Order: sequence, then C-alpha cells, then structure tokens
Amino acid sequence: MADEENAYSFTTKATRTIKLSNLGADGFPMRRGGYLAEVNLAYESWGKLSADADNAVLIFTGLSPSAHAASSEEDLSPGWWEYMIGPGKAIDTNRFFVVCMNSLGGCYGSTGPRSINPETSEPYGSDFPTLTVEDITSAGHELMRELGVECLHTVVGSSMGGMAALAYTIMFPQNVKYLISISAAAQALPLTIAIRSLQREIIRSDPAWNDGHYKSGEEPVKGMALARKLGLISYRAADEWNSKFDRSKIPRERRTGKLFEHEFEIENYLEYNAQKFIYSFDPNSYQYLSRCMDLFDIAEHGGTIDAGMSKIDVKSALVIGVTTDILFPSSQQKEIADCLQRTGIRVEYVEIDSVNGHDAFLVDDEHFSPVVADFLADTN
Amino acid sequence: MADEENAYSFTTKATRTIKLSNLGADGFPMRRGGYLAEVNLAYESWGKLSADADNAVLIFTGLSPSAHAASSEEDLSPGWWEYMIGPGKAIDTNRFFVVCMNSLGGCYGSTGPRSINPETSEPYGSDFPTLTVEDITSAGHELMRELGVECLHTVVGSSMGGMAALAYTIMFPQNVKYLISISAAAQALPLTIAIRSLQREIIRSDPAWNDGHYKSGEEPVKGMALARKLGLISYRAADEWNSKFDRSKIPRERRTGKLFEHEFEIENYLEYNAQKFIYSFDPNSYQYLSRCMDLFDIAEHGGTIDAGMSKIDVKSALVIGVTTDILFPSSQQKEIADCLQRTGIRVEYVEIDSVNGHDAFLVDDEHFSPVVADFLADTN
Repeated sequence: MADEENAYSFTTKATRTIKLSNLGADGFPMRRGGYLAEVNLAYESWGKLSADADNAVLIFTGLSPSAHAASSEEDLSPGWWEYMIGPGKAIDTNRFFVVCMNSLGGCYGSTGPRSINPETSEPYGSDFPTLTVEDITSAGHELMRELGVECLHTVVGSSMGGMAALAYTIMFPQNVKYLISISAAAQALPLTIAIRSLQREIIRSDPAWNDGHYKSGEEPVKGMALARKLGLISYRAADEWNSKFDRSKIPRERRTGKLFEHEFEIENYLEYNAQKFIYSFDPNSYQYLSRCMDLFDIAEHGGTIDAGMSKIDVKSALVIGVTTDILFPSSQQKEIADCLQRTGIRVEYVEIDSVNGHDAFLVDDEHFSPVVADFLADTN
Repeated sequence: MADEENAYSFTTKATRTIKLSNLGADGFPMRRGGYLAEVNLAYESWGKLSADADNAVLIFTGLSPSAHAASSEEDLSPGWWEYMIGPGKAIDTNRFFVVCMNSLGGCYGSTGPRSINPETSEPYGSDFPTLTVEDITSAGHELMRELGVECLHTVVGSSMGGMAALAYTIMFPQNVKYLISISAAAQALPLTIAIRSLQREIIRSDPAWNDGHYKSGEEPVKGMALARKLGLISYRAADEWNSKFDRSKIPRERRTGKLFEHEFEIENYLEYNAQKFIYSFDPNSYQYLSRCMDLFDIAEHGGTIDAGMSKIDVKSALVIGVTTDILFPSSQQKEIADCLQRTGIRVEYVEIDSVNGHDAFLVDDEHFSPVVADFLADTN
C-alpha cells in the first residue's frame, strides 16, 4: 500500500507515469489562466489495447482516489473500484483496455500543487494555477493520445469524475463513442458549493496552513481532519447511519471522562476515518480539486446547459443517480439524462435505490454492476 | 437591540430575571451530576395571567434564540417568533399568558457558562457541569412556579425547545394540559450527532478556545464562524438555495482576485450570517447547548421511547414536521406522533410542505400560524 515515507504521493507498483511530450512553448495551458511548464500523469491500466485501438475505456476519479482503481497481477492490493473492473466484471478487462488516471492537480503521481515547479525548483503549493474540471479532462485526453488512443470506446466517471467525463464528451465529441456518468452534475449548485467552500475554509483556518506554503511533514492535518469529517457526513445518508450506529456509545473503558470527549460510536467512526485520510492527501490538492467542482458549469460551453450538451455526439449514454445522494442528488442526474435526450442522444437513466448516499458507487456492487454490465453489453 | 458593550449577554428592555428561591442546600442539581449553587432565569412574557393561573403558555427555544420571542409595548423590536405571538395571533396574548425563557446554559441572561460561579467568583467557562435537555426543562418548571403557575395550559417548543417541551410532559405530567412539539426529536440520531459534534470540534480547534477558559473579548470567533456556517448549511434546504442563489457570483468589483477567495453569493451569504452571529453567542454556551441535544433520549425515561412517552398525560398534542428538514426530519416527527397516539393521547400530526428546512418554524408564517391557531382554538 502507501509508502510510509511519502504517503502523500501514494502510488502502487502498477502505477505508470507519462510525461506529456507534445506541449507547446507555453506548456499546458490552464483554462482559467496560467500554464504548467511540465505535466506528468499517473495512471494504471488493465486489459490490452486492441490492434485498432478501439476498445479503450477511460475512468476519471472522484476527488480523492488514486489511479489504483483495481488490482492486477502486478499489484494484488484491491483498488477503489475493485468490484467493477476486472476479467468478467462489469467493466470487463477481457474486452476492454481500461485506464484510470490520477487527476491533474492530485497528489498520487500526477502533476499537482505538491509537484516541483520546474521554473522555480520549489513545490508549487498555492502558486499552482487555478484548476478546472476541464483541465483534468484535457489532461486525460492527452494521456490517451500518448497511449495511442485517438477515440475512446467509453468515458466513465463518478462524482467529480462524472463532471470530467461529461466535459470530455463536450470538449472532444469526435474522440468518444459512449458515456457513463454516475452521480455527477451539469453544474455545481449552492448546497454543494457551500459544503465544499466550508471544508476548504476549515483547512485554511488551521494555523499550519501557512497560506498553502506549509513544509512537508508540517501539513495542516487538524484542519484536514475536520474537513474530511464534513465530507464523510455529506457522502453518506442518514438512514444508513441510523441502522449502523443508532445511538451506540463508545464503551466506558475507552473513554477518559474528559469534558467534551467523544461519547457516541458515530463520533468515533468519523475520527477513525478522518485520521486514516489526513496523512495520505495533500491539503493543497484538496483545495484545488474541491474548488474545481464548484467552478464546473456546462453552461460555460455555449451559454446554457442545453447548448453545452448539444455538442455531445456519443452513440448512447448511461446516466446513474442514487436516491439517497444529497450531494449530487438524483434530480441532477435526471437533468443530465433529460438534457442528453433533448439533443437526440439515446440515454438510459437509472435511479438506484441504495442506502449508501453519494458513496454508493464505491460500495454498492449489487446495484451498480448489472447496470454498467448491461449497458456495455449493448455497445459495439 | 443588543448592548454593544456586552453583546454576549444580550437582553432587551422587556427581559426580566428571576433568581430561583427554593433551591435546597445542594443548589440546583444537574441530571448528569454536579449542581449550580445559584440559578438565574431570564424570561419575557406577554398577556396576563388569569386569576386561576390556568392560561399560561411556556415556550422553550432552539439553541440560539433569546427570551425575546416577540415585541411588546415595553420593547418594540421584533422577536424571533414575532409572527406567532401577539394579540390576535396564533398564540394569542389576549387569551394566554405567554412566557419565553432563555435556556439554562444559555448566554442571554440565564445562568450559563459565562455566569459567575458564586463559589469561585470566576465565570464557569468549561467548569460548568454537563447540561441536559432535562435540566433546561426543570429550570422552566421552576420558573413557572416562581411566576405562580402550577399547571401550564400549553408547553411549546421547536428544535431543541421541542425536546425540552416533550421532556416537560414526561417529567411533569400533572403540570401541563397541552403540548405543541415542532421539528423536535424523541432522541438524537447519528447524522445530527455527527453534525453537532463536528461544529463543537471546529470551535475547540480554534487556538483561542483555550480549553473553554478564554477571556471576554478573546473568544474563539473564527471557530464560531465556521461552526455557524455548518449550522446554516444544515438548517436550510437545497431547493430553497437553488432558487435563491443558483450560481450567482459576487460582483467582480467586490472581489480581490486573491486565491481561494469567495466567488459565489452563497459563500457571501454564509460569511455575512456567520459574522452576525459570532459576536453575540458565547462559545461555551454553544458547546453545552449543542451537546445536550446529542444526549437527549426519551428512552432514558423508562427503557424505551414508548415507555418514556407513556408517562405523558396531556389532553391533546400537536406535532409538526417539515418535509425539507434534514436535521430533525419529518420521519422523526411522525414517530413522536405515532408514539403519543399509541399511549392513547389525541394527536394532530401536521407535515408542512415548506422549502425552509429546519428553520421553517422561524419564517414560514403562512403555513405555521393557521395550524397552531386551529389547535389552540380547540383547547379549553
């Protein structure tokens, strides 16, 4: 698993890195201004690219996952989407050449705020230019070209990755045949902007934040822990927690009796999961990736969401929403599906009745696998 | 309005304070242990107590309001429940003697962490004993006895106040005839415990927190602002914000261009409202009042919620829920109503279809007033 010495740049034995070779004199231009002099992209892949290079599936991740979406012979540790990707699984690696990229701006091998800026020989930190979802999408497009793929069979994404997948079909309509969009959004709405904005502010309120120029080993981990707890609260649904935790209390012998200490198992759960996260994710990456979701708005690609979506030219699309998702609610998935349909695209819209909220795609094998498998079975 | 010199002990010209006179040698005993040597309770009242003292309505507040629920001749400034209380209004002060008390543990005139501990001549701060909803309820009961009321006509409460009102009917079944419970809970569930626990932790992460022994003027206001933002996020519903803010941006001329600055109006709204709050609410009061909601569980009054509720002996009850409330969801209101009904009590359950989420009772005059007025019209 993570290299203990350098957990913030977590990669596995199976992670490859490609340095983009075809950048112009101005480097990799960023959508909101600025550029990156050099771009490295970390990815993992499963299955084999066909001779015609027509069987590639590109997976964009949510905010926090690495490129390690699934295990392989090279690395047996389970990936974050282990149930979905593999021989005979829904995204069948006997049929497809599957690629998962660590997002541009991330901290698991791709160029991001923790990378050395070749122009200053210092880490970018908060001097990294503003990141947009579209920049992540462009990076994914360049990566696939480096791998010899001009046209994707399918672009797949969930959460932030769903935004990036949607953007791919808009920005590169000639380079993709099918779309799978899971718990995404055509634009960020106030509730999610508010939650993410508060998470970022909590991190920046940690005195260790130091305007984004903290040193390695001196990261604002306290702020990260609090922000992560807010994330966990928004990712899951009330009913799941009711049945899982109810009002269970931490056993008395594990409590100190100190004022304000945690007393309920739900508090313990948040603490445990926050602690697991904070030493493996770079706070600046968190700021940039979180913000890019707020900025995402398909209406910027033509004036309205409909105009933006009308640029899409896939053969068919699968759009999946989850009933209990409060962050990317099913109403927003329905909107994506309706909008695609209005542009004349064949759309399958599936609303999954899962208790797992926004995180359902990560854990709900039973509901997700058949839907994705059936959709891909109908593609050619 | 608030006294600028001492905003943390906000009272109005109409606020009265009563020092409980009938405390035993051990003072006011607290449910989870400890005691208060002296208890002052701040309240406001409207209307006149009848000769038989049978027309008293006691209102318990949510976490943050003061006793100033409505204006009066003495103080014309509008109260936090202005639309509900007054001559000819739903809680009609021509008929009722209406009392609203600042909660025990609060900071608007009643004894709380900011009060001077008579035994040390220092403010309690975090040496205040653990507070429970039941302690607030007992204080309300003592206050009414001091005012010459042995039996309430109606006990009313919303949010935390709804918990206190429910507790009143369980703890003092012979001292109350009718119950109005709004957006309350028979017990706190994991999602709300998680949100409140995180809010408190955010405050305690502010270096100014100083273990709850901050000095006056040196309060952890940054932590309070972040916690308040999380509160605001949980009090309102996504659809209301979608229609109110959509993706409106703060005008460019009001932005500095600084990295990570607020760009969306929703961020501006949270900032504005947080700033309004932080200089008028004591951080220790926030910790104690917030925690007492987590601890509330009617099952502690007999082993199960049903057993606790079976102690209630009101003539009838009005239970109100709001469809868009994520903090005290309507399913929990239905549970209260069903449970009361099983014990043989006449219950009116009303689910209000409001866009205003948990805050609906504060603002949705149109939906709430007729329901409360009709219920009280049927009482004698």
